[in-house]
Amino acid sequence: MSSFSFTIEAECPNTGARAGTIQTPHGTIQTPIFMPVGTQATVKSVSPEELHQAGTQILLANTYHLMLRPGSAVIDSFGGLHSFMHWDGPILTDSGGFQVWSLASMRTLNEDGVTFKSHLDGSQHILTPEHVMQIEAELGADIILPLDICAPHPCTPEYAKQAMEQTHRWEERALVAKERYRPEQTLFGIVQGAFEPELRCESARVIGNMPFQGLSIGGLSVGEPKAIMWEMLGCVTPELPRNKPRHLLGVGSPEDLVIGAGLGMDMFDCVLPTRVARHGGLFTHAGRVNMKSARYRTIQGPIEEGCDCYTCRNYSAGYVHHLLRTQELLYERLGSIHNIRFMLRLAAEIRAAIIAGNYPAFRDDFLARYIPASEKVREEQREKWKLARKTI
Amino acid sequence: MSSFSFTIEAECPNTGARAGTIQTPHGTIQTPIFMPVGTQATVKSVSPEELHQAGTQILLANTYHLMLRPGSAVIDSFGGLHSFMHWDGPILTDSGGFQVWSLASMRTLNEDGVTFKSHLDGSQHILTPEHVMQIEAELGADIILPLDICAPHPCTPEYAKQAMEQTHRWEERALVAKERYRPEQTLFGIVQGAFEPELRCESARVIGNMPFQGLSIGGLSVGEPKAIMWEMLGCVTPELPRNKPRHLLGVGSPEDLVIGAGLGMDMFDCVLPTRVARHGGLFTHAGRVNMKSARYRTIQGPIEEGCDCYTCRNYSAGYVHHLLRTQELLYERLGSIHNIRFMLRLAAEIRAAIIAGNYPAFRDDFLARYIPASEKVREEQREKWKLARKTI
Repeated sequence: MSSFSFTIEAECPNTGARAGTIQTPHGTIQTPIFMPVGTQATVKSVSPEELHQAGTQILLANTYHLMLRPGSAVIDSFGGLHSFMHWDGPILTDSGGFQVWSLASMRTLNEDGVTFKSHLDGSQHILTPEHVMQIEAELGADIILPLDICAPHPCTPEYAKQAMEQTHRWEERALVAKERYRPEQTLFGIVQGAFEPELRCESARVIGNMPFQGLSIGGLSVGEPKAIMWEMLGCVTPELPRNKPRHLLGVGSPEDLVIGAGLGMDMFDCVLPTRVARHGGLFTHAGRVNMKSARYRTIQGPIEEGCDCYTCRNYSAGYVHHLLRTQELLYERLGSIHNIRFMLRLAAEIRAAIIAGNYPAFRDDFLARYIPASEKVREEQREKWKLARKTI
Repeated sequence: MSSFSFTIEAECPNTGARAGTIQTPHGTIQTPIFMPVGTQATVKSVSPEELHQAGTQILLANTYHLMLRPGSAVIDSFGGLHSFMHWDGPILTDSGGFQVWSLASMRTLNEDGVTFKSHLDGSQHILTPEHVMQIEAELGADIILPLDICAPHPCTPEYAKQAMEQTHRWEERALVAKERYRPEQTLFGIVQGAFEPELRCESARVIGNMPFQGLSIGGLSVGEPKAIMWEMLGCVTPELPRNKPRHLLGVGSPEDLVIGAGLGMDMFDCVLPTRVARHGGLFTHAGRVNMKSARYRTIQGPIEEGCDCYTCRNYSAGYVHHLLRTQELLYERLGSIHNIRFMLRLAAEIRAAIIAGNYPAFRDDFLARYIPASEKVREEQREKWKLARKTI
């Protein structure tokens, strides 16, 4: 039924890293891969042609946002997301679950599903595992995810267990429901279990044994320290079947990509690279730099020497700085393109290192040079963004 | 010294319209032409490649904004505007005079020049005719304009006369000063005279007889009814030398381009097409449409059937509407590209009609189909933009 497949070309003998190829109806994805996020059927400020040029192989779009605006039935009437947004490559849609928990207000949960009020206009909506399959069928992505419950950090072990078990029951329902709508879509399972190592192992075993074609690891990168995220992932990976692609939901930064690949992850998605770019934070191999800094005013060279992105090939750091300082719209685009290209070149470098058999050395070299944003800075940014979102 | 030239290929026997070719160091311009405005060394949200693709032959940039940020010396250190902004075609810079009168606060005028406070940080600056030539030399545009005084609408005949005469004296000083800086730049003269037919005639004669290589008509489209603008232009054109290109400063809309060409104008510039685009107003041959309107939500066809712009070739009106409604940054780009392409295709159509000998019929057909925004709507928008500018 499905034209989806996953093959592994190389595995690191010393870590969990592997290089693979995913086939989808809209093209091939070479893993490990980073997926830019096009929340509202557009990667903010960047065109599909620019995404292709930056090496993008697959996009993620958010079911929650699209079901509210313009509505999944409207997108269906345009022939689905690919044709609606003029992107002919693979697309993955999430289930909306994460956004229901982080954006919507007045959520009511029961065994059947979740009732919530839209963050846009307060209108009431119901999501059930079955309904999500219908919505995602209308959106028409290549890879879709089932409705899940994303537990907050921190949460009690009791809540974590209850949320995980309900997620498992919902996922079974999703598997059944999906066959009713568009069986040719590829449904990934979602592993939950919050921050309890035993629950994480259990969820990985349960979901890993269901007939999903890939596995997303959910509920991480929700505010916990990174060390805890990696610890959880360390529990999950050994329990997962080898022959299914593994997607680390909502992660991450350059260093997350490098570390996560070593823990057996094949696919990554995050708004971070484009969001920090829009706020002036651009990636270099030495870490994130702040383009607002006056030291860029007279720099005639590119943002990073040797970078092959459209921005660095055509514009000076001084000009990019000028656009940011004068609040010119072209800045958001040039900055986003740079960070997206950085992430995709990094993914290709990780893959090449795995195939060449020197992933551990590549990882260690990268991490020795790349200074990540501190936990404190990341936490402050998260709070600022949350606040900004509330005032929209 | 200058590689600038202007030749006329065709003239309409019944109107003032003519089709010409301007040679500049950075390329050829076929007139009549519309010049998109890149105020801060960027046409808001649009890349240089997209400008080329839309048929842009020359850009205008604003000396006032660039002298304040990043400063003309900084742009000089990058090799001038072309290299700074990655645009290899012709550029025209204005003198900053208009913005001093409309944006800056606490202006003090004397015979030597004008002292003003920056609208950005209140810092004090002095512009003299000589200093403007130096700034524009550092910016390095192909065509530059001299410092002038833009009288408001309405103003007394006494003020109009005084401002015009001082502008004339300043322009003579600019002619002398320009030779000290970059003599290879092309200096246009500016015709003033406010809304007094006799002054307009006098200014056209005086400036037309000075050794400028082209002539810009200033002080129009500053809030007066359009009928008065066309009346003034009717006075000016007969007094101007035939063999120099004529630039109608800060004009205009699609209908202005069609009408202005018939009154002998060769070059037009205005922020209007890109500004109204960003606010949802997109051009079609039937007039301006509002993309916010819910009627576009499900439209699978382009913004206008037959339009050859990047936006219309690749995206549905429904998707463009979605981007606008969800405040996505890609909207500003797609809308701006559409309107820029509309203006440049219109300029090419006017030129073709002049060459084919049927400009009057083309003009009448266009105006019969195109419903312009009413004076009332235009005045309301002007007030809204002025207010928005003050609150930045």
